[in-house]
Amino acid sequence: MDRSRRYRTSRMITILEKLCIAALILALAPLSRNGYSSVAAEDANDLISDDTATCIDCHMSVTPGIVSDWQRSRHATATVARARTLPPQERRVSADVVPTHLATVSVGCAECHGQLTDGHSDAFEHNGYAIHVVVTPRDCAVCHPAEVEQYAQNLMSYAYPNLAENALYMQLVESGSGLQRLHGSTLETQPPSDTTYAEGCFYCHGTRVTVTGSETRDTELGTMEFPRLNGWPSQGVGRINPDGSRGCCSSCHTRHRFSIAMARKPATCAQCHKGPDVPAYKVYGVSKHGNLYAAEHAEWDFTAVPWIPGEHFSAPTCATCHVSLLVTGDGEIAAARTHRMNDRSAWRLFGLPYAHPHPRSANTTIIRNRAGLPLPTELTGEPASEFLIDEVEMTARSGRMQRICGTCHSTSWIAPLFARTAHTIAETNAMTLTATGILQQAWEHGLASGPAQGGSPFDENIEKMWVAQWLFYANSVRFASAMGGADYGSFANGRWNLSENLRRMHDWLAIRTDAGSD
Amino acid sequence: MDRSRRYRTSRMITILEKLCIAALILALAPLSRNGYSSVAAEDANDLISDDTATCIDCHMSVTPGIVSDWQRSRHATATVARARTLPPQERRVSADVVPTHLATVSVGCAECHGQLTDGHSDAFEHNGYAIHVVVTPRDCAVCHPAEVEQYAQNLMSYAYPNLAENALYMQLVESGSGLQRLHGSTLETQPPSDTTYAEGCFYCHGTRVTVTGSETRDTELGTMEFPRLNGWPSQGVGRINPDGSRGCCSSCHTRHRFSIAMARKPATCAQCHKGPDVPAYKVYGVSKHGNLYAAEHAEWDFTAVPWIPGEHFSAPTCATCHVSLLVTGDGEIAAARTHRMNDRSAWRLFGLPYAHPHPRSANTTIIRNRAGLPLPTELTGEPASEFLIDEVEMTARSGRMQRICGTCHSTSWIAPLFARTAHTIAETNAMTLTATGILQQAWEHGLASGPAQGGSPFDENIEKMWVAQWLFYANSVRFASAMGGADYGSFANGRWNLSENLRRMHDWLAIRTDAGSD
Amino acid sequence: MDRSRRYRTSRMITILEKLCIAALILALAPLSRNGYSSVAAEDANDLISDDTATCIDCHMSVTPGIVSDWQRSRHATATVARARTLPPQERRVSADVVPTHLATVSVGCAECHGQLTDGHSDAFEHNGYAIHVVVTPRDCAVCHPAEVEQYAQNLMSYAYPNLAENALYMQLVESGSGLQRLHGSTLETQPPSDTTYAEGCFYCHGTRVTVTGSETRDTELGTMEFPRLNGWPSQGVGRINPDGSRGCCSSCHTRHRFSIAMARKPATCAQCHKGPDVPAYKVYGVSKHGNLYAAEHAEWDFTAVPWIPGEHFSAPTCATCHVSLLVTGDGEIAAARTHRMNDRSAWRLFGLPYAHPHPRSANTTIIRNRAGLPLPTELTGEPASEFLIDEVEMTARSGRMQRICGTCHSTSWIAPLFARTAHTIAETNAMTLTATGILQQAWEHGLASGPAQGGSPFDENIEKMWVAQWLFYANSVRFASAMGGADYGSFANGRWNLSENLRRMHDWLAIRTDAGSD
Repeated sequence: MDRSRRYRTSRMITILEKLCIAALILALAPLSRNGYSSVAAEDANDLISDDTATCIDCHMSVTPGIVSDWQRSRHATATVARARTLPPQERRVSADVVPTHLATVSVGCAECHGQLTDGHSDAFEHNGYAIHVVVTPRDCAVCHPAEVEQYAQNLMSYAYPNLAENALYMQLVESGSGLQRLHGSTLETQPPSDTTYAEGCFYCHGTRVTVTGSETRDTELGTMEFPRLNGWPSQGVGRINPDGSRGCCSSCHTRHRFSIAMARKPATCAQCHKGPDVPAYKVYGVSKHGNLYAAEHAEWDFTAVPWIPGEHFSAPTCATCHVSLLVTGDGEIAAARTHRMNDRSAWRLFGLPYAHPHPRSANTTIIRNRAGLPLPTELTGEPASEFLIDEVEMTARSGRMQRICGTCHSTSWIAPLFARTAHTIAETNAMTLTATGILQQAWEHGLASGPAQGGSPFDENIEKMWVAQWLFYANSVRFASAMGGADYGSFANGRWNLSENLRRMHDWLAIRTDAGSD
Repeated sequence: MDRSRRYRTSRMITILEKLCIAALILALAPLSRNGYSSVAAEDANDLISDDTATCIDCHMSVTPGIVSDWQRSRHATATVARARTLPPQERRVSADVVPTHLATVSVGCAECHGQLTDGHSDAFEHNGYAIHVVVTPRDCAVCHPAEVEQYAQNLMSYAYPNLAENALYMQLVESGSGLQRLHGSTLETQPPSDTTYAEGCFYCHGTRVTVTGSETRDTELGTMEFPRLNGWPSQGVGRINPDGSRGCCSSCHTRHRFSIAMARKPATCAQCHKGPDVPAYKVYGVSKHGNLYAAEHAEWDFTAVPWIPGEHFSAPTCATCHVSLLVTGDGEIAAARTHRMNDRSAWRLFGLPYAHPHPRSANTTIIRNRAGLPLPTELTGEPASEFLIDEVEMTARSGRMQRICGTCHSTSWIAPLFARTAHTIAETNAMTLTATGILQQAWEHGLASGPAQGGSPFDENIEKMWVAQWLFYANSVRFASAMGGADYGSFANGRWNLSENLRRMHDWLAIRTDAGSD
Repeated sequence: MDRSRRYRTSRMITILEKLCIAALILALAPLSRNGYSSVAAEDANDLISDDTATCIDCHMSVTPGIVSDWQRSRHATATVARARTLPPQERRVSADVVPTHLATVSVGCAECHGQLTDGHSDAFEHNGYAIHVVVTPRDCAVCHPAEVEQYAQNLMSYAYPNLAENALYMQLVESGSGLQRLHGSTLETQPPSDTTYAEGCFYCHGTRVTVTGSETRDTELGTMEFPRLNGWPSQGVGRINPDGSRGCCSSCHTRHRFSIAMARKPATCAQCHKGPDVPAYKVYGVSKHGNLYAAEHAEWDFTAVPWIPGEHFSAPTCATCHVSLLVTGDGEIAAARTHRMNDRSAWRLFGLPYAHPHPRSANTTIIRNRAGLPLPTELTGEPASEFLIDEVEMTARSGRMQRICGTCHSTSWIAPLFARTAHTIAETNAMTLTATGILQQAWEHGLASGPAQGGSPFDENIEKMWVAQWLFYANSVRFASAMGGADYGSFANGRWNLSENLRRMHDWLAIRTDAGSD
């Protein structure tokens, strides 16, 4: 081989080497990203604790699906010790110190189901190990204390008591979910059953999980004893756990992958925010942001921490605006991570029965309006201000959100949109007030029986029309305003429905009071 | 070149070879998986039968879309002979023997449209070949007899007669779809037109496709004669075909790719299971399983046979629970493949008008309740047990489903969910009974005219409210119970609507009977 | 190294070269396709004009999201000069000549916001440059004149005046969106606010954007002056722009990527075509085409120009049938590109209040029916033919659509579907006529006040029932007919609802006229 040829060969090999390595990396990239690869499996095996290895020995054949799911999780390949070496903005672990025996192993079965069992009434002896069934925020706080602390200030973490311990709201639950039977010409409502609670309102709000005893089961691996739980399963956001804690991290970080990517995708929020009462997901779907998501999200990076607008995604999801740590390309923090979901929201769009500034405390059972009702507004619309954030705090929260908008939009774009939403809140509140006025006339005419007549305000035909006004239509219009919701502000439970419902209520009243039809 | 250099060159080439081949395989993998590659085209060409090649010669320019679609199908690259060499669990072909001339060619135009034409009333002469328009389950059964046999026991395969030959159900169809005209102050309903049938209920149920003659058409390739079909096109699941067979495989395995991947994705079922009567897809969408699907399905393998939970997917789709062959990682069969869709379901959630154990026979036209009506339940709710599966069979079917749940979940999770659903069936049936009670009072008061008064039970205002109770709201609550449906059990056609509808019916009755308003 | 070895080395390198290049191309393909790569960044930088570079200098840190978005756009890597070298079918640029200074630079900030500012009332001085806020079709027409000209003949381009300048339609807007207050027992409606207009009907129709002054803002980069705009932001399709032009290209080609791929995906159309009035997207979702899209679109090529059925996609999206340039594999044009969206549609399915042949002019404010109303049909259903396309034109448009269907389907499939839709239009018009008959009786009985009584035909309870008949239910059935919409033709705002609504209207009338209940 002559010199030039030799040189060419050699040079080519070098180039080929680089090309090949580049090609390999690129070819492997999608595999390692989606996690359906076994590339890191060997390393991952070394990180598994002995206890977890014992769990997997059986559960690989007993419940293989969740074991595989976990094997694809970050928990299966990460240790706290390694996580602590990352720059602060890249860390997903907020604990400064974790117990030594947890720091250098991956986060497996035993690390979640087998710690802190003393505080768990659902703990039991299982093949020589003390484990508990329900993994709770208190368990997760071993490694993620900041996030759990934030979530404890989140309205969602009180979703169970905020409903179950509010006597007025429970009248709505009971009249809506209770079994109704006909006795002669009378409809009688029974209190809902536990099943109905678990599948109705408390499906999203979360159940109270309690231990009612234990039971023996014949399993593939012999006879075993298990705790018997009431209110289980539940993945509701305000679940009351057997260790006394509130909440359920797997509502959004679905077990057993516990993925940040999943929590950042809007379908996760859709689990509870798609119905006519909170149509956030539907509104998002027809918004410009939702359109970008639908068209382009397959290209986005949902696992990057921190999350960089423009670099990792081109339009926000629910998490972007309400939860995630956002950093711009030059390293500036556009939004600090929060699991207090209303940290960046001034207004509670969800009317009870009127939209209002967010409550100061996540525990809303303490709220009383001037009329003594456990409502954040009067029936005439005024906010129960003592229990709600003030203008300073509203401005601060709104400012945090607008800073996020500002990573893509100018003030000329942002300011009028926020002004519109404030205006829309006022208008939808006014449309609710009109409905309330009609209802009050119905009560005064004895056509229905409200609180002043000793009845529930939610259980009769005209009362249910009133509920639809604020719970469905006013809410839909507000969400559409806040996110750009096209028909959800018009014909799809929007302004059309607000006005149509008023006319139906008015017509109902007119024919019964001989005032002529509407 | 010195020796070490030579060695290095040589060694490098070997490494490079391996790297390149690895890179190529990985780079090609997504292409061959999605099928948008022509890599195997040469081989595929060799497999095409002469007859099919003739078809393609013209149709490549006449209808290029479907030819391309077929070229990406498994049918275009597979032969029965090869398929028979696979281990049994991996086979998609269930025939033990197929005609020799079919065994070694790919499954192309002529192999489906050009066999068994003698039995096809839609067969015609086309450029020298006898072909038929409508490919039917009987045609597919040449290679897939087991699946066709299973499907023949599927309720869906009787979807046409089960509706068209049930006089009571047809009253619902006619009052709901027929043209209504105003004569003076009377609304008169005409029987629906054929068009309305094809686009209304029978769009999903399937039409009866018959040959009404033939017609001559000027085509790009000259004047040709074609059969004239009535009820065509139709892709309804219970289509009555011109060869007398029932069903339409392309309802789910959409022509001309006939893909198992597509049939396994929930959007396929959504074609007919998304409306208020059967909101299965909507419920799935907000369920935890649906959330996992939305967030992660781009990573799953939808073509693998057998389908391994955890390895190929991390949450079930409709097909996983109701159809697919599921095998665990250690080769154990978790579920045998079935095309009898209720093989793993004890309860028919779909109330007629009450939920009930599944019918014994897919042909439900034979059912009569004690009152002599062609209904699987009495109007008072008791099941017409003689025609329905018994508890032993219910337990067996439920057991099959729970075995699937068990690939991810423990008994502590599964058992209470199944108990809740049984309870919810009882409660929603009770809420239907209450509505029936109000309707009967309306009939007794002469405010509407039911069967006892010689009228249809479905055509008047109060009767339509009653239909909504069981057809929309009770069904929605049950599907939400079975799959975890959040708002579909609450405010989105859920319990709220069950109770609101009762109050509306009651109020309607009260004002007409001077019993005061509700 | 011996000769054969040398040869082998050399030959191997050649093979390796080819393999590597192939592997690299394949590996890079998904990146370059999704645009989340910086591979072409260097070249792209060279193309940026000096003015645009100045914009980016600041905006990279002020609004990094949109800069990144633009960097992924075709605009960032393309020049008109290069585009003009492509074969005509592959061009996205229709201008024959563009100003020299624009031809050889990429299409950046300054090229869109900094040209034609003289005609822009929203132009202002910004750091030494004259720029305008709102980029309009007139701006886009510099490079895309053919598309802008087509769009100017599109109904959507008149979406603002067609609503705002039609006194009758505005009665619907006002009664549906205006604030209603209760005075005694009377409901009084105020005209909607500007906010309500922007978020209600005109969210999709587009606002009139006007300059009302200017304002000074403290920004990160010092105090600056900006124009103050009314009606901004708006992305509605018929936006009236500050340069007097009509329309908004970014309604579908979302800024700042302006992607053809996005416009071709159905979620883009869903922004405005998902509600109960125009449920096109929902119908598509359950159609066979929509099912194919859901199952397979991740494999399709949404950026190819021209777009080849079968090669680039296996089922049509909205754009395929209504907009895109389609070419078959052998180079024949199956459909010319059009931005006049009804170019391939004979019928306007959207009833006002009856479905009718498409208007001749995109400006529908000129239409008067025989009764003198600004409606394309009489209240009794006859079309205002003078203003509508004739049968010749209907046949031509329908033919264009059928040619597209023909790339996959035979005439035996296509012809009956088009016949069914024509029939369904007639039937749904008849069901609207029946509702109109009931309404007229209500007016005659003095139970509501219509135009003849000096009232709005849209604001009372019975009138709103009538609106639902044609605006929601009849429309839904027609879209379901045209696309294959399963339940949207049956129970989901379908025929069931058409018939149920008639019964409700009839019942409402009966109890008020003592004609007995329905």
